[in-house]
Amino acid sequence: MTTTATGTTGSLAADPVTVLGLGDMGSAIARAFVERGHRTTVWNRTASKCRPLVEAGASAAATPDEAVEASRFVVVCLLDSAAVDEVLGSVTSSLAGKVLVNLTSGSPSQARSNERWARERGAEYLDGKIMGDPPDVGTSNVSLSFSGSRSAFDAHEPILRELGGVAYHGEDAGLAAVEFLAQVAMGYELLIGFLHTLSVVHAEGVEVEAFAERVAGSVAAYPPLLTMMGKAIGSGEYGPDLGSLRVQAALMDDLISHRESLGVEAVRMREVKELMDQRIADGHGGQGFSSLFELLTKR
Amino acid sequence: MTTTATGTTGSLAADPVTVLGLGDMGSAIARAFVERGHRTTVWNRTASKCRPLVEAGASAAATPDEAVEASRFVVVCLLDSAAVDEVLGSVTSSLAGKVLVNLTSGSPSQARSNERWARERGAEYLDGKIMGDPPDVGTSNVSLSFSGSRSAFDAHEPILRELGGVAYHGEDAGLAAVEFLAQVAMGYELLIGFLHTLSVVHAEGVEVEAFAERVAGSVAAYPPLLTMMGKAIGSGEYGPDLGSLRVQAALMDDLISHRESLGVEAVRMREVKELMDQRIADGHGGQGFSSLFELLTKR
Ligand SMILES: NC(=O)c1ccc[n+]([C@@H]2O[C@H](COP(=O)([O-])OP(=O)(O)OC[C@H]3O[C@@H](n4cnc5c(N)ncnc54)[C@H](OP(=O)(O)O)[C@@H]3O)[C@@H](O)[C@H]2O)c1
Ligand SMILES: NC(=O)c1ccc[n+]([C@@H]2O[C@H](COP(=O)([O-])OP(=O)(O)OC[C@H]3O[C@@H](n4cnc5c(N)ncnc54)[C@H](OP(=O)(O)O)[C@@H]3O)[C@@H](O)[C@H]2O)c1
Repeated sequence: MTTTATGTTGSLAADPVTVLGLGDMGSAIARAFVERGHRTTVWNRTASKCRPLVEAGASAAATPDEAVEASRFVVVCLLDSAAVDEVLGSVTSSLAGKVLVNLTSGSPSQARSNERWARERGAEYLDGKIMGDPPDVGTSNVSLSFSGSRSAFDAHEPILRELGGVAYHGEDAGLAAVEFLAQVAMGYELLIGFLHTLSVVHAEGVEVEAFAERVAGSVAAYPPLLTMMGKAIGSGEYGPDLGSLRVQAALMDDLISHRESLGVEAVRMREVKELMDQRIADGHGGQGFSSLFELLTKR
Repeated sequence: MTTTATGTTGSLAADPVTVLGLGDMGSAIARAFVERGHRTTVWNRTASKCRPLVEAGASAAATPDEAVEASRFVVVCLLDSAAVDEVLGSVTSSLAGKVLVNLTSGSPSQARSNERWARERGAEYLDGKIMGDPPDVGTSNVSLSFSGSRSAFDAHEPILRELGGVAYHGEDAGLAAVEFLAQVAMGYELLIGFLHTLSVVHAEGVEVEAFAERVAGSVAAYPPLLTMMGKAIGSGEYGPDLGSLRVQAALMDDLISHRESLGVEAVRMREVKELMDQRIADGHGGQGFSSLFELLTKR
């Protein structure tokens, strides 16, 4: 997914860039741009963090204004949205004709309000969310989701690809954050469920490490099922995935009472059982697990 | 994982077997034994279900007693534990010297009480839990977990392998059910989290089917992480997996308020945030996600 410095589109690889924010992630981004031959201007609240970048070839700006004036393409990567508001709010020089790319983690509504703010000042806005570790910036182990101005994305895709794999989610500036928060939440759902499951087997005296390896083997089989369930939900045509709800529900009481007997929480298992019972009562007991989605979107 | 009819151990492949229960799963099991050349005796409460098996070469017994007397190796596969209690409770002929293999889904405590019941009657007991679909019996798409008498498992492993992939979890008869319930619960944790995540993106107007495919791609990356976390938990040495808890916790408020703004539940996300805050307050903010396990086993 990485591209070399010689881009082929209107966004010449040697385009000047500005990076506001030199924490772990901002520094990795600025370094990637310097290494790929861009004239790179950096600014950070704590000025000393500019030093390694300047040694690598970047120019340090004394103020956000000075940094913004140096390039048409301006990347922001700060701790959070509050920091973004503070830094951008202090900018007095014109943003007209600039491309503002915000790679700070945050919510969809923050992205949407940033977009309005930039548009009012004549700038194009791209919201980006990064998944991956700073040392991996510039490799396919980092992936970036973008949303906002399509023309800005199309014109600058090559330079964005210098940071990792990229995907564009739509003109609504909030969509990159939606994707990011949803992917992160899915990971936490899986992982907290994993920890609770480990505490069940631990309470039964089973060796946790070996069980974790067996569960990892089972989880590896789920991706095709998720794709298939997504299709069923998209079309509203629910087959008996994982067996019919009637058969699945029969097992849930054993599952719940086993957990309770060990003092392990069963929040999700009780929820699943209630949803199954509801669907069965509604006359859909022959459908499969994915059909529970119908109840979630109604609540 | 399937083995051919010519076993190489003391359990000759042509050993006579009895199968009590000819539902979808019991019928598939009996058919696999018939096809592999065993003298197979079957019994079912509703006698008409014996017919296809008899046509395939099995003998039908008129009562559970008659079926139990026909073979030393007796497999039970009924709807649930209540059915097992009813059918085995009606048996008056001697079980001394028999091997009783119960493939009915159920809880660890039910397996343990079955084991005591069999032992009191001079029989060896193996508890087995099946994962997979009846048409796949006899292939590696079906996997069976066993626990209980090790000598019975060792002596009869070849015939058990005729049904699918097998694993032995220990002398405690409840362990196969522990493994089964834990694996099933892990699946439901993942899947209900998936449905809630889909309802988030759905509420934001994102196409569910395409998002499901992207999430499937992300989930495919988790198995190595689960194995690694299992190692950390087993050893009690927690690195900063997924980043430090301090950095991870910073994102959780955005996640939770985003869900709340859409009316999507955030039970697990709030739980994760509370656990992270607790670990940070306890001075472990530099550790990673897997360290939350310490709090779960304490509760
Ligand atoms: N690190 C990762 O693994 C990772 C991965 C994916 C996404 N991200 C995202 O990338 C963004 C940056 O992360 P990071 O790892 O670089 O964080 P970091 O190392 O903690 O750096 C934070 C940056 O924000 C600046 N900052 C904070 N508050 C400020 C304020 N009020 N005014 C001006 N500047 C302020 C800091 O300036 P000072 O130097 O003056 O404190 C520093 O440059 C975050 O949104 C994070 O979620 C990070
Ligand atoms: N089917 C699957 O996909 C699957 C997958 C994995 C595990 N399993 C497990 O395998 C076991 C059997 O499942 P199955 O699919 O074969 O179920 P099934 O098709 O519903 O058959 C149930 C069997 O139990 C018998 N039965 C029920 N109550 C009884 C009672 N009180 N006395 C005597 N017999 C009774 C039924 O006899 P009648 O014919 O007289 O009603 C029938 O033989 C279950 O524990 C299930 O969880 C099934």
